Amino acid sequence: MSKPEIGIGLVGSGFMGRCHANAFRSVSGLFDVPVTPRLEVLADATDELAQHSALALGFARGTGDWRSLVADDAVDIVAITAPNVLHAPIAHAAIDAGKTVYCEKPLSTTAALALEMTEAAEAAGIVTLVGFNFLRNPMIKLAREIITSGEIGEVTGFRGRHAENYMANPDVPHSFRTDPQGGGALADIGSHIISMARYLLGPMAEVQADCRTIHATRPKTLGASERTPVAVDDMTHALVRFANGVSGSIEANWAATARTMDLSWEITGTSGALAFGQEAMNELLIWSDTGGRSGYKRIEAGPSHPPYGAFCPAPGHHLGFNDLKVIEVAELLSAHAGGVSCGPDFREAYEVQRTVEAMQHSHASRRWVSI
Amino acid sequence: MSKPEIGIGLVGSGFMGRCHANAFRSVSGLFDVPVTPRLEVLADATDELAQHSALALGFARGTGDWRSLVADDAVDIVAITAPNVLHAPIAHAAIDAGKTVYCEKPLSTTAALALEMTEAAEAAGIVTLVGFNFLRNPMIKLAREIITSGEIGEVTGFRGRHAENYMANPDVPHSFRTDPQGGGALADIGSHIISMARYLLGPMAEVQADCRTIHATRPKTLGASERTPVAVDDMTHALVRFANGVSGSIEANWAATARTMDLSWEITGTSGALAFGQEAMNELLIWSDTGGRSGYKRIEAGPSHPPYGAFCPAPGHHLGFNDLKVIEVAELLSAHAGGVSCGPDFREAYEVQRTVEAMQHSHASRRWVSI
Amino acid sequence: MSKPEIGIGLVGSGFMGRCHANAFRSVSGLFDVPVTPRLEVLADATDELAQHSALALGFARGTGDWRSLVADDAVDIVAITAPNVLHAPIAHAAIDAGKTVYCEKPLSTTAALALEMTEAAEAAGIVTLVGFNFLRNPMIKLAREIITSGEIGEVTGFRGRHAENYMANPDVPHSFRTDPQGGGALADIGSHIISMARYLLGPMAEVQADCRTIHATRPKTLGASERTPVAVDDMTHALVRFANGVSGSIEANWAATARTMDLSWEITGTSGALAFGQEAMNELLIWSDTGGRSGYKRIEAGPSHPPYGAFCPAPGHHLGFNDLKVIEVAELLSAHAGGVSCGPDFREAYEVQRTVEAMQHSHASRRWVSI
Amino acid sequence: MSKPEIGIGLVGSGFMGRCHANAFRSVSGLFDVPVTPRLEVLADATDELAQHSALALGFARGTGDWRSLVADDAVDIVAITAPNVLHAPIAHAAIDAGKTVYCEKPLSTTAALALEMTEAAEAAGIVTLVGFNFLRNPMIKLAREIITSGEIGEVTGFRGRHAENYMANPDVPHSFRTDPQGGGALADIGSHIISMARYLLGPMAEVQADCRTIHATRPKTLGASERTPVAVDDMTHALVRFANGVSGSIEANWAATARTMDLSWEITGTSGALAFGQEAMNELLIWSDTGGRSGYKRIEAGPSHPPYGAFCPAPGHHLGFNDLKVIEVAELLSAHAGGVSCGPDFREAYEVQRTVEAMQHSHASRRWVSI
Repeated sequence: MSKPEIGIGLVGSGFMGRCHANAFRSVSGLFDVPVTPRLEVLADATDELAQHSALALGFARGTGDWRSLVADDAVDIVAITAPNVLHAPIAHAAIDAGKTVYCEKPLSTTAALALEMTEAAEAAGIVTLVGFNFLRNPMIKLAREIITSGEIGEVTGFRGRHAENYMANPDVPHSFRTDPQGGGALADIGSHIISMARYLLGPMAEVQADCRTIHATRPKTLGASERTPVAVDDMTHALVRFANGVSGSIEANWAATARTMDLSWEITGTSGALAFGQEAMNELLIWSDTGGRSGYKRIEAGPSHPPYGAFCPAPGHHLGFNDLKVIEVAELLSAHAGGVSCGPDFREAYEVQRTVEAMQHSHASRRWVSI
Repeated sequence: MSKPEIGIGLVGSGFMGRCHANAFRSVSGLFDVPVTPRLEVLADATDELAQHSALALGFARGTGDWRSLVADDAVDIVAITAPNVLHAPIAHAAIDAGKTVYCEKPLSTTAALALEMTEAAEAAGIVTLVGFNFLRNPMIKLAREIITSGEIGEVTGFRGRHAENYMANPDVPHSFRTDPQGGGALADIGSHIISMARYLLGPMAEVQADCRTIHATRPKTLGASERTPVAVDDMTHALVRFANGVSGSIEANWAATARTMDLSWEITGTSGALAFGQEAMNELLIWSDTGGRSGYKRIEAGPSHPPYGAFCPAPGHHLGFNDLKVIEVAELLSAHAGGVSCGPDFREAYEVQRTVEAMQHSHASRRWVSI
Repeated sequence: MSKPEIGIGLVGSGFMGRCHANAFRSVSGLFDVPVTPRLEVLADATDELAQHSALALGFARGTGDWRSLVADDAVDIVAITAPNVLHAPIAHAAIDAGKTVYCEKPLSTTAALALEMTEAAEAAGIVTLVGFNFLRNPMIKLAREIITSGEIGEVTGFRGRHAENYMANPDVPHSFRTDPQGGGALADIGSHIISMARYLLGPMAEVQADCRTIHATRPKTLGASERTPVAVDDMTHALVRFANGVSGSIEANWAATARTMDLSWEITGTSGALAFGQEAMNELLIWSDTGGRSGYKRIEAGPSHPPYGAFCPAPGHHLGFNDLKVIEVAELLSAHAGGVSCGPDFREAYEVQRTVEAMQHSHASRRWVSI
Repeated sequence: MSKPEIGIGLVGSGFMGRCHANAFRSVSGLFDVPVTPRLEVLADATDELAQHSALALGFARGTGDWRSLVADDAVDIVAITAPNVLHAPIAHAAIDAGKTVYCEKPLSTTAALALEMTEAAEAAGIVTLVGFNFLRNPMIKLAREIITSGEIGEVTGFRGRHAENYMANPDVPHSFRTDPQGGGALADIGSHIISMARYLLGPMAEVQADCRTIHATRPKTLGASERTPVAVDDMTHALVRFANGVSGSIEANWAATARTMDLSWEITGTSGALAFGQEAMNELLIWSDTGGRSGYKRIEAGPSHPPYGAFCPAPGHHLGFNDLKVIEVAELLSAHAGGVSCGPDFREAYEVQRTVEAMQHSHASRRWVSI
């Protein structure tokens, strides 16, 4: 029997927009989702651009006006991959229209705006999901399961990092990334390691960060000779104390020469430890005390780590980045069908953003800041 | 402007059938392919099963009769993921019908049959492609480019292996895998490392193999107490001499406890070396002489390694196994549109099979065998 | 022609005492040192114990009185591996007697005492050396050479750690390690990563640390049922700013389940990066921008990395921990013969200790502390 | 109480001679050996050279005549690190003189000569030891213990290699290494992986090898413009069948660009697997089936892996290459004191050499050869 169809409206067609489109196209051939997504409308900056992208990405229609997409009766889920400053107005409109909202991170440019969005969604009973896609990795789900089960004992320490090198070159120009509203390495990628730390260990209680701008100026635009000052961090190191007493450190760094995707962590417990790095995203290292045979064991992703099996019945056939987005969309469709938000929802994304801002405040005040 | 649509007919809906379906669904959102695939018909063992799978995998129709699929005017490409014994009849029918043929490996159960298929396809001017998907990896393409450019000098040695553990347990029952016609570790996965060796270094001139059956009997069917003898190899080690003089060794092993996907090799040249392992499929190791700074360098896949950029504009965001199939399908669609076979075509797949059989003969005769 | 002999007096015969003895025995067969050490006297807690150890470790004589060792005319170098509280009195006596002093780390139990020792040695013109043996690694020397040469550009970030698990078990009893005077993970092993950071990047200007006691009590003695409170840290995370502007983090952790010797760091510069881990002590990772061929390159120790060649003429034959001590002793003998202190001397060891104490103060005050 | 002293006579002072000297100097400070070695005489090509080396390496006397060393009453153990052609005459003289003989590998230039040496030593009841030092690694001892215990089930497969790059450059000149008597990659380093395979899995029953000369000529001497033909292999790949039924492959390669010490192997059993590589000589990988938590576990060397504890009481402090020689000498001294040969003795070294020659014959005849 055929499943009910639901209409997808996608705003934006850049890196993440393409990812979303691919995931919505693929999901029902891989997962037994309760509804079948129909790629209905794609909104972009202009009608022309939108129609071009709609064709390329398999959407039925394109529009230069995101408001019409939100208002469209054929659209059940609004997926937001527009510039960060647009997240709030689009999400509010979608909430008002009673649509499920799937928004890329960061939820908004400030925690205050994110809170407003969260409260509006909760008041309206809207299903929400924010795209912290790295959490969808079966190895991360396994890590949480292991921690929760008590298998590594009481957790004592956390050491995490998200380091890339896409802003290492001082000639990378200004963009939304360097906008003081929501920009900087900490907000841009630090938010990934913060969301992962929260997913695995719960909320942080106190933080103390050291934010640093490495390249004091950047070209106004690509190739421009005019350079203007940079007001955001390129690199942040932070001390963290979790509510459960775990202590640790977090680094966010987009000027990390040599690193393309060092989203990594080690978690130490009283009777075991886990370690993970996105550079080897299909592996989880686990340690338990086995006397003279102790050592880190490298678990490779396989069908015994759901939902790996949805992609492949055999172990060792790696999942890739785009597959994480497919998992995210599968969870979104289930949440939509069930009428309940699935994590990380708007509130969780707000909490991540609040943590980012607490770190920024701790840097400015040179003091520990409670969250 | 919209691209021309072409109809896909898929035979089979198992592991590989699902992979094909997913690739045909995804490809046009990721690659700028010249034609847009339309998932037309899926054939399976019965009408009912086929209709169920068609629905699940997004095909318009299902049929229990693969001959009707082949004959269907709406079908332009016949994708064969049926049991190995059916490859020949389906392919011959498709060739007769003038359809492009996309067939899973092994091309057939014997090299003789594979040669017949090859000659039929060539005579009819049919576009063919065989699914040695691991070749599609951007890192493998990079490796070939490096070798061809002379960057590592004259190649001297090859050491390759495909080792997995899916048959390590003696209670895994008989199946097509243990059928003496086309079965055994060498034919099943040895063919992958052979195809990759050929892709990188060209044909082999002489081989000498040692095939071994580790588990002398297996259950007749899953869970059966009755066990019957096994006539195929669980593990083969082979010496190889390539036509260009390179010497080396190849191992095929499906009883390799500890290994889920050790498709790996090291290639040594007079001025450099390369190493690769599917367990880290987004990496290629390269060595060149830089004096006291020499060492293996770990290149991570990124947009400078086509066609990685079709999936993601940023480096370090891994491709997964299913993405390799999408690349394969993108190349198939281009070949179809251009009317020329793309590698590995039927002839190449026949050559792989011929190499497998030469190894088997060398084992039986305990002599080196020329190919 | 035979080289002049010099007499060695060793105080202590534990882990480090044995290391010293082995190094003094081996050094002249491996290095072309200007003087030949003669193992003269070993001092230990009692005459009997000392004589036993002297025999075992190849010293001519043993004594229960370290003062007689220091006063012995046949002793030219006093090597101190006694309990930390004895470092100061022995060193002062040796300085007064005009002997070269080779002292294990930490130099003393407080920075104040360490400063007194430093000033006494400097006033007397005594050659001193403190045993931060990990600095002797050819790979660490290579790292410093690379940094100093500007090869990785201007250094921007540091992320370092020394993590082991020898105190992870809450039933490890109290000892000198948990004595508030000079004890704790930060002082015990944090000092190693601090000394290495200083060796590579120079002094730190400001620090902010978070020290934490994981096991609030420990047995009074091994196996005792009586447990007493622990007043030192098991785990410290710290933010650091170097005088040259580099920012980073340092972790010291002796309760790091899973880790036996994670003395590791990554250093990022504007045009390159380096990474090292003592778990692979014969390797240094280096990154430089080579476009689509960029990646971390794994340099293996060999004769082109002095003084590796003193141990072995062929690359790839690993050095071990004890070899680092032989290098240290070779440098000590050269310094002794030349009459100049070699790094790290007493002053450098004092600076390390001062940094440790600044971190402890920053924890207590919950503020950044300038050094 | 002091231990009895025994006199050491060392023939040769090159790479291995220095290693021996260092081991004899160090051993009694690290191991509780039953006798204390006294460095008595060193023999070298001339009196002058020998006296110089004796001084540098700590021997009491030097001589240009190895016969006088063998005849010297103060010499109890004759250590042979002379050129390979001298092994037989020196060993025979030492055997005749009733001295314990410690000989570097290869035992001789041909298996026939090695057998004569073996039979002479056995007839005279002489304690012998041959320097296959890599077997002394605690991780290799642990591997054998694990295999013998049945922990990985019945062993099924072996894949081993010794690859280095010291002859990769075609301008490395002729030397004893390229002498057809006992030279070539297979004899020189293939013997290491063969001896290790035998240590772990027992004797081989049948072999089939493919030997290849990569550089057809080499300079007559270093820097010479005259080049003469090379008659030995640079690279050998071999198929092996062990007496216990295990099948596998072995590679010996001294032209392996990129590799400085790839002495490595993987051993697969019906219920587990082990893997080792000399590039990480302080680690052993072990795999056992633990369901969804299966994976290779990386065991780091530590005091629970004898005799690691003789060097260091703490885990994670690596042993180095020279330490392996110290272990070898410790075992030699125990064997000498007990009057029994310790493995690998002359007979075992002969068996290794016989295996090398069987491989060479199999290459020449292009057939499997039984051993």
